Amino acid sequence: MNNGKVLVAQGGGPTAVINQSLVGVVLEARRHPGIERIYGARHGVRGIINEDFYDLTQETSHNLELVAGTPSSALGSTRDKPDLAYCQKIFQVLQAHEIGHFFYIGGNDSSDTVRIVSEQARAAGYPLRSIHIPKTIDNDLVGNDHTPGFPSAARFVAQAFAGANLDNAALPGVYVGVVMGRHAGFLTAASALGKKFPDDGPHLIYLPERVFELEKFLADVRAAYDRHGRCVIAVSEGIHDASGKSIAEQLAKNVERDDHGNVQLSGTGALADLLCDQIKSRLGIKRVRGDTFGYLQRSFIGCVSDVDQREAREVGEKAVQYAMWGDRDGSVAIKRTGFYSVDYELQPLEAVAGKTRVMDDAFINEAGTDVTDAFRLYLRPLLGSGMPDAFRLRRHVVDKRLNP
Amino acid sequence: MNNGKVLVAQGGGPTAVINQSLVGVVLEARRHPGIERIYGARHGVRGIINEDFYDLTQETSHNLELVAGTPSSALGSTRDKPDLAYCQKIFQVLQAHEIGHFFYIGGNDSSDTVRIVSEQARAAGYPLRSIHIPKTIDNDLVGNDHTPGFPSAARFVAQAFAGANLDNAALPGVYVGVVMGRHAGFLTAASALGKKFPDDGPHLIYLPERVFELEKFLADVRAAYDRHGRCVIAVSEGIHDASGKSIAEQLAKNVERDDHGNVQLSGTGALADLLCDQIKSRLGIKRVRGDTFGYLQRSFIGCVSDVDQREAREVGEKAVQYAMWGDRDGSVAIKRTGFYSVDYELQPLEAVAGKTRVMDDAFINEAGTDVTDAFRLYLRPLLGSGMPDAFRLRRHVVDKRLNP
Repeated sequence: MNNGKVLVAQGGGPTAVINQSLVGVVLEARRHPGIERIYGARHGVRGIINEDFYDLTQETSHNLELVAGTPSSALGSTRDKPDLAYCQKIFQVLQAHEIGHFFYIGGNDSSDTVRIVSEQARAAGYPLRSIHIPKTIDNDLVGNDHTPGFPSAARFVAQAFAGANLDNAALPGVYVGVVMGRHAGFLTAASALGKKFPDDGPHLIYLPERVFELEKFLADVRAAYDRHGRCVIAVSEGIHDASGKSIAEQLAKNVERDDHGNVQLSGTGALADLLCDQIKSRLGIKRVRGDTFGYLQRSFIGCVSDVDQREAREVGEKAVQYAMWGDRDGSVAIKRTGFYSVDYELQPLEAVAGKTRVMDDAFINEAGTDVTDAFRLYLRPLLGSGMPDAFRLRRHVVDKRLNP
Repeated sequence: MNNGKVLVAQGGGPTAVINQSLVGVVLEARRHPGIERIYGARHGVRGIINEDFYDLTQETSHNLELVAGTPSSALGSTRDKPDLAYCQKIFQVLQAHEIGHFFYIGGNDSSDTVRIVSEQARAAGYPLRSIHIPKTIDNDLVGNDHTPGFPSAARFVAQAFAGANLDNAALPGVYVGVVMGRHAGFLTAASALGKKFPDDGPHLIYLPERVFELEKFLADVRAAYDRHGRCVIAVSEGIHDASGKSIAEQLAKNVERDDHGNVQLSGTGALADLLCDQIKSRLGIKRVRGDTFGYLQRSFIGCVSDVDQREAREVGEKAVQYAMWGDRDGSVAIKRTGFYSVDYELQPLEAVAGKTRVMDDAFINEAGTDVTDAFRLYLRPLLGSGMPDAFRLRRHVVDKRLNP
């Protein structure tokens, strides 16, 4: 039996449901009699090395439930990617505070941190249970059917494109919406779920799983525009050329990199503006508009999938159960068991850490500009209940009198 | 008694509730025994001169209700701004189809079209009742407490900033959100309603009602960032210098103008990117992100104020009543009668047409970087029921052990 102190933290980009996982950990841990204290580290691993902890044992259950329903990381997050020395510091703090259970909610960078801390504890003979709890709107964790946070962001993207399509139908032109996703196109592909009628947009979808060629893109837009009199396009911020160089990076004057060596792709409208300029100048289409969904898609309050909420809560709960009743460290994974139902497993940390999942080929059509029905079937149940729907007037055409 | 044919059309930018007004007209007109046919012109005035009509009499009430709940203009819209010759064409078509009642749902440009058509019918002795039905997310129609469409867009902006603030609190830095609004800052000011705690963002709000000075802006951002360790900023796309020249226009390489002579401000991320570049380079702050809300704020499906829905429906209904039972043309206006309740009036078309309302001085604080409580009180009831709320963990700080 480990000692009775739990530490939980949140890393990486916030999501609409990451606090569900936090609260899942706290409420489940409270039910185990051996647990004396539950600490939350502020701003992820940085809060750990700074011993910047809140005592969540003193939180009311009621406020925890309210926080669970609030988007973004309530404990704060960090982009720090700990190296070995950083992880040694983390381990020192865990020892000093006699932490027996460490839960880190985050993406694949966070799972790698858990992996290193877990190894250090084992090497030192210190009794620590370390569990990684999945979270990422990119849906790029291997071994998971999908990851908490993705369904709500996908719902935002689907609703955004459903609305953008209606707007574009009312005032025809070309609309380009740029969606987050550096390597994995899942979130951009979610735009397809905003489509109801066969002539609805998005008419074209560009994913980082396929090479982006500007000339082919312009020909695609021309064809769709000629066919529909308008064109709605979903573009991943991570689109790249054949050499793997991102289109956004080719344009950015001052490339900014985070501690993970990643180029900043979000928080700038450059990619959308460039693509719009190309469509205007090369295709001679006048009304061309570009939106970059930016932080709205991961932080908008009031757009959430209830399926996502439930699962995010459960991965937190299951993490505590694996820690209390299991005999190994690992990463909680979501497995699909029905249409629609899931179960949870504890994966080895090595199986997840530092790896990136991308879209299956079966999810992308042959032309590389749309998703398949397999993807629609995969995503639809994740979006949850109460998806808004769009309706049209029926075409009862009136005979002309002046110019029949 | 006029003859029994009604024509309804939608002009200008779509909103989340403009179809409520359309359906308000159709369902109310059906209740009047004298009405034989209700036509809808596709794509506003352009559809009129092209005799491109749907017969809405044949629509089911059920489908009309579903369309009412769908954002964007179901009949299609147009940016055409008719001159006298164009209005003469409109009038010819109205005559040819024996239209007795003309309803045009739109902003102040649309009200001007109704005014000209009304004058021509009167000059020609043709029995036509012409009513303008208000609609604009900019909230810039004079004589109205507020305009249908604005409350839902304001709700989107408030929810977006509530979420952006949470995201920014989790990963501190500077966040700039650029909001629609060429001359009137109402929609940008709505960002303030996303704020709950005193240290929440938006910490700074820049409106077109005040002159924008880059140096003062940078000093404001510096001060807010030093105070909060982060800074969330709401900026209107219409901000301009002392000469009235828009900051966005100063940056745009290829300025695009619509038929109204307006510069395209939306559908480009240039303004946000420029402001972010200035903050990075001049203030030396590394993590600076900019989002341009673009078309999301007016077309996102699933973010709507129920108060806005109700009122948008009612202005359509009232328009028909004024037409059937009244003796003059005009523009339907919303008047506030309680906290919160409204009534409707028919204003003269000349009182609305071509005029622009901006924010009262009483709504803007002295520094010109925030709204007042008067504005919060004005806007809050319009946002409707079920506004999502954000909750925080309480600060039960744990004593440090390694570095007390």
